[in-house]
Amino acid sequence: MHVDSAAILQMDASYRKHLINSFLGFKPGLLIGTKNEQDQTNLAIFSQVIHLGANPPLLGIIFRPDSAERHTLQNIRKNKYFSINHVHEKMIEAAHQTSARYDSAISEFDAVSLTIQYIDNFEAPFVEESKIKCQCSFVEEKRIEVNQTILLIASIDAIFIPDEFIKADGFVDSAAAKSIAVAGLDAYYACETLNRFSYAKPNKPISSIL
Amino acid sequence: MHVDSAAILQMDASYRKHLINSFLGFKPGLLIGTKNEQDQTNLAIFSQVIHLGANPPLLGIIFRPDSAERHTLQNIRKNKYFSINHVHEKMIEAAHQTSARYDSAISEFDAVSLTIQYIDNFEAPFVEESKIKCQCSFVEEKRIEVNQTILLIASIDAIFIPDEFIKADGFVDSAAAKSIAVAGLDAYYACETLNRFSYAKPNKPISSIL
Repeated sequence: MHVDSAAILQMDASYRKHLINSFLGFKPGLLIGTKNEQDQTNLAIFSQVIHLGANPPLLGIIFRPDSAERHTLQNIRKNKYFSINHVHEKMIEAAHQTSARYDSAISEFDAVSLTIQYIDNFEAPFVEESKIKCQCSFVEEKRIEVNQTILLIASIDAIFIPDEFIKADGFVDSAAAKSIAVAGLDAYYACETLNRFSYAKPNKPISSIL
Repeated sequence: MHVDSAAILQMDASYRKHLINSFLGFKPGLLIGTKNEQDQTNLAIFSQVIHLGANPPLLGIIFRPDSAERHTLQNIRKNKYFSINHVHEKMIEAAHQTSARYDSAISEFDAVSLTIQYIDNFEAPFVEESKIKCQCSFVEEKRIEVNQTILLIASIDAIFIPDEFIKADGFVDSAAAKSIAVAGLDAYYACETLNRFSYAKPNKPISSIL
């Protein structure tokens, strides 16, 4: 395939959606847990989550305002707190099923048979089956006018990770936790470590730090 | 590990940087090729690239204004066009080495021994060794005031992918192309397909579409 923007715009809409969503490669696969004003829980898979900063710890989530994810966005706007939970290899069917457009009266936790977990006094509903998880809270929204998508900016309030997956330098080994990667709208991958490299400097070869 | 925001803020800075950059899991590993006003080429690895829309095709890149990536951001601001190139398993050392803070007079293409490629009349310098690549152009910037990071929004002007990696529905199989995933600041992963699932609907089991 060798296409320019005119050819991309003339593609069949479904074909273009799969192509453009998938061709940038691998993304995280993360379950976002929220509650609405009636304390009804909601769970939805997202791959559009991005690191925004370590100090203070911040992340961003891209939302399409008219898409199936609107329950999650509405709940975060109203309730402020939410959880982010890793998906491991045995959870991919359940995680994918959360993308169905369930009625707001139905909790995806029940619909896909994942277990609601509350941790200490943290407000967000977590996924008990997930090994790596965090609580976040709403900071602000940025509207991307060109296509009306929304970048939601959130602070990371708490992190829960089994110690066995954390290296001495703070690095979290998602492959050891059997967390999956996502591509496009519907593809799930196992990841295997190739290498970790030292901080790169000009005129100095990098070395493995595995 | 079971930490709240106060404990996160008290961590050693390097430990926190590794932890917060890595705990959300897998990201794409992509080489961005640019030119400056003197036609000097630049190449840098990024994992903070995100899909923003398929129609029109748009993506976003997160930049830290004071980081080593500033050549890339400056070049995109001045020259508008840039390339995004997948990293495959045999390129990870070279890709990581592009993160060294080279002087602006040095092209990372030369420094890490990757080959500059120009395609037809497209303005951006591409990586010949990459199999999946695209040309993009600057649309706008959004400043995230809370920590001064920048979301750069770009349109996807052209896409180049060997047909063997594109499925009939438009899905691009990055695992077949041996493209890698990244975690944190320095970890590289091979990905293996677990499954692709049908569009999820309430009360209907998903099925494999591999």
